[in-house]
Amino acid sequence: MEKNIFMELLAAREFKAIRSILNVMNAVDIASLLSEFEEKELAQAFRLIPKAKAAEVFANMSNATQSCLIDAFTETELKEIIDDMFMDDTVDLLEDLPANVVTRILSNINPQKRAQINILLDYPQDSAGSIMTTEYVSLKRTMTVKQAMAHIKEVGIHKETIYTCYVLEARRLVGIVTAKDLMVADDDKTIEELMRTEIIFVHTGDDQEQVGQLFSKYDLLALPVLDTDECMVGIVTVDDALDVVVDEATEDISLMAAVNPSEKSYFETPVLTHAKNRIVWLLVLMLSATATGVIITHYENAFAAVPILVSFIPMLMDTGGNCGSQSSTLIIRGIALGEITFRDIFKVMFKEFRISIIVGVILALANGLRILLMYKNFSLAVVISISLVITVIFAKLIGCILPLLAKKLHFDPAIMASPLITTIVDTCSILIYFNVATVVFHL
Amino acid sequence: MEKNIFMELLAAREFKAIRSILNVMNAVDIASLLSEFEEKELAQAFRLIPKAKAAEVFANMSNATQSCLIDAFTETELKEIIDDMFMDDTVDLLEDLPANVVTRILSNINPQKRAQINILLDYPQDSAGSIMTTEYVSLKRTMTVKQAMAHIKEVGIHKETIYTCYVLEARRLVGIVTAKDLMVADDDKTIEELMRTEIIFVHTGDDQEQVGQLFSKYDLLALPVLDTDECMVGIVTVDDALDVVVDEATEDISLMAAVNPSEKSYFETPVLTHAKNRIVWLLVLMLSATATGVIITHYENAFAAVPILVSFIPMLMDTGGNCGSQSSTLIIRGIALGEITFRDIFKVMFKEFRISIIVGVILALANGLRILLMYKNFSLAVVISISLVITVIFAKLIGCILPLLAKKLHFDPAIMASPLITTIVDTCSILIYFNVATVVFHL
Repeated sequence: MEKNIFMELLAAREFKAIRSILNVMNAVDIASLLSEFEEKELAQAFRLIPKAKAAEVFANMSNATQSCLIDAFTETELKEIIDDMFMDDTVDLLEDLPANVVTRILSNINPQKRAQINILLDYPQDSAGSIMTTEYVSLKRTMTVKQAMAHIKEVGIHKETIYTCYVLEARRLVGIVTAKDLMVADDDKTIEELMRTEIIFVHTGDDQEQVGQLFSKYDLLALPVLDTDECMVGIVTVDDALDVVVDEATEDISLMAAVNPSEKSYFETPVLTHAKNRIVWLLVLMLSATATGVIITHYENAFAAVPILVSFIPMLMDTGGNCGSQSSTLIIRGIALGEITFRDIFKVMFKEFRISIIVGVILALANGLRILLMYKNFSLAVVISISLVITVIFAKLIGCILPLLAKKLHFDPAIMASPLITTIVDTCSILIYFNVATVVFHL
Repeated sequence: MEKNIFMELLAAREFKAIRSILNVMNAVDIASLLSEFEEKELAQAFRLIPKAKAAEVFANMSNATQSCLIDAFTETELKEIIDDMFMDDTVDLLEDLPANVVTRILSNINPQKRAQINILLDYPQDSAGSIMTTEYVSLKRTMTVKQAMAHIKEVGIHKETIYTCYVLEARRLVGIVTAKDLMVADDDKTIEELMRTEIIFVHTGDDQEQVGQLFSKYDLLALPVLDTDECMVGIVTVDDALDVVVDEATEDISLMAAVNPSEKSYFETPVLTHAKNRIVWLLVLMLSATATGVIITHYENAFAAVPILVSFIPMLMDTGGNCGSQSSTLIIRGIALGEITFRDIFKVMFKEFRISIIVGVILALANGLRILLMYKNFSLAVVISISLVITVIFAKLIGCILPLLAKKLHFDPAIMASPLITTIVDTCSILIYFNVATVVFHL
């Protein structure tokens, strides 16, 4: 439904019509429709949403819209919404709101839920603990399928997912049973007979990137999270894992382009924040590029004697930079997907070395030939071709070593992508170039 | 379990022990263990896998291992495995095998399944149709919950997912019911009463990127796929959607580093293929960089008169390139996530313009000050600062316009990332630089 139709109905006080429409709309779509509303209409419109859907709509709104609504809510309304929200959505909400609003929300939550929320808020950002929910279905191994189904019918409606059930014994996870197992099994089978004991799990402190990798490797719908005592404390659901995978990729892509990652989308991020996220890297890289400039001045005599040398600087720098970023990017992605680890460093180096020989020789031949034809200058062709081969080998080796070293030193490998590699490779390529030129031209 | 332990048990013919171990191992882990085996041991080891798990293990193997096993299989073994595999896994398998093996497999499949497979194989690569499965649970709206549960118990075991059931009427999708709805509802409620009619769906020809976006936006577990007559033909499950999201990000990241994307992992791709995926872009970019070189020679008199000018070329080129790739990367990712479309082009340009002013002025001030202090040359500081500001503005505008234009022209916006932008911006920055220098130094 378009905003203007909705507004007309609201102005005409056609509440019944609005309610019927909201009744058949998806919660996510209602949330994005309401995000276009002004403060006053927003609360009015929100109150028309069917009660069963209100919490889900609220959970799908942007922080700005949520804050706006919270200001408009009465204490009773606020309490109702928060009570109906899933634990992980509540925690997400609280993480991004100003302190005074958080206090107001926490004072409206029952003490038990508040205690759980406080524990979840304590987990470090980007850890498995910070994205898990504490709402899952637990079963006993002695239950029959019939008893288990009755138990789920009783508690299931308040749980975020009931499709993987966890068999616990003294808070330890001893097995998992899927809803599918239960639905296709005979009523009198016991959980013990049905449950699988090969369990994939993470600990609360594990990185969310690892959570994403496990979901993708094992095709999971939910992943149990254990605390340091190996007791089960929660689950991560597949929808949150999907968000993690998308966010981690976006974060890596930003960093790889020398932009500090923002949690918000492009348009949600203000101009000043955009500038702030970009300027630090630009300043650092500009300073490093100055080094390359200083090196060039050292060879002033060389290009005073053979001025044509200057015109090949951009080609050498660009090609070196491109070769380096090709390697670093593939390695960074391989590390992020868990396909490449530091132990593979020599295997990777050998592979990149062989690739760089092939690529380097082809580029050198192409360029050497072009120079021979265009300038009829054999020495120049030799200088450029030799420089190209050495630069490409250097670039590819630097490009594959630095991300792996960064990983080993617990930095994010993504910072070792194109821009930084380019700057480092630039300096190398200029040094290689002028040294080769000095030798060949006897400068 | 480590490979060597397994090999020892195999050599000692301890088949019972191996079977018990395989029984508790996850299918994905068995697949990766077996991938390290030689041809002969592979088939021997595979035959020890519990029958209920064999198809799942097989589906999780690499193409090379699968081919190897298929060669070793008898017709009966092959038939059993294929019969137990889910439809979408079978299609994935067939897409990557040589034609003679495909023929052998298809001749071992029952005609009905073969017909379905042939339809699935026909969908264009990367379309929703190509990643869907035709196995889902359909219900009638007149069924009661009890009847629906009985129906699922009967057919469910052969379906890839039973957690979202589809209510069909003359092959049209009229509603969806989740397993959770069924499990928590009273036995005598009808499907009609339970089903939701706000349905998110795609068509067979839609791009898989869109499928990933819908899963992530609406937190889905499965997504129905309709044909051009609006009849339901299959579903995409969340595990495949997750793979799509990971693959699409990897593809974009590769392209953004000027590497043609490979479907295989870094180590699975041979050196020659790696070289082939990289060389074309490098040649194209090298040629373009030559243009920058040619422009430089035009200004030979300028740097003959003021040799220090040459030493700022790398800094200007790098900063311009970095600014351009920052913008292009954020825009490309925004397009991939569906947050930015061509219609936003003026909004994006205005935003990037404002950002570039802030960033450009800071960079110019920092550099101008450095030059004043180091070289005590006011004219030089002015030339570099003015060139920087203009270059940054140009770079950011080009960086945001080109990906959007590419999208509009149905190219992959990712090709407009760092390397190409860098090369284009290089030429611009050199032109800007020497023109500013010519004016200020009256050359």
